[in-house]
Amino acid sequence: MSDQPNIRELTEDETWEILGKHQIGRLATAVGGDVEIFPVNFAATNRRIFVRTAPGSKLAEIAVNGHVAFEVDEVGADLAYSVVLKGAAEILEHDDDITDAEATGLLTFLDTHKPVWLRITPTAMSGRRFTR
Amino acid sequence: MSDQPNIRELTEDETWEILGKHQIGRLATAVGGDVEIFPVNFAATNRRIFVRTAPGSKLAEIAVNGHVAFEVDEVGADLAYSVVLKGAAEILEHDDDITDAEATGLLTFLDTHKPVWLRITPTAMSGRRFTR
Repeated sequence: MSDQPNIRELTEDETWEILGKHQIGRLATAVGGDVEIFPVNFAATNRRIFVRTAPGSKLAEIAVNGHVAFEVDEVGADLAYSVVLKGAAEILEHDDDITDAEATGLLTFLDTHKPVWLRITPTAMSGRRFTR
Repeated sequence: MSDQPNIRELTEDETWEILGKHQIGRLATAVGGDVEIFPVNFAATNRRIFVRTAPGSKLAEIAVNGHVAFEVDEVGADLAYSVVLKGAAEILEHDDDITDAEATGLLTFLDTHKPVWLRITPTAMSGRRFTR
């Protein structure tokens, strides 16, 4: 909890509500002390984060270390929010899982081929609301 | 370089131009395979990233491993940008360095006490422009 009057910790429900309103987040991975950060398209549903991606360095990192961090923020004139979570990322391979992921209806910014789904199951999350 | 017609790699100058237009970025750190991501207020000047922060977990992480990643993005209806860089973060301790950092005029979202300056010197950076 924060002791500053203009910062409030969000409840878990509020945190999921913020995640549900956004489609762009940032995924961070770490392999051998080397850290990477990727902007990603995502959908939040059933208390999981689903990310559509193309084969590349993101997947290579996650195959080595599935412990990831994920962030979303929203900054307005007088109000800002941030959500950070840590969790386990899996590359979805089973048809049932991929069907669930596709049911999110997630589109990507470009209509390019992003055939791989990641699912992040949070192990810790926090959200904060800032007013000024 | 991308082979997709609607994705263009930014030049280094364009990348700094995008960084110069923003004040909120995301800093990722890694210690022992554990990754953290923090939304931060920043200023880009003289080809360095300056971040104002308060004592806390961010600084503890950087004291252990100063190799960080940093990200900024901007998403509009038809155009989006992202910039990702990797670099070495230092906690500024010398008066001259702190004077340089303060000269950026960086404000934080809240007028709270954030007395510590970080300076990130990029070792690799990339920027992309997406149109649809």
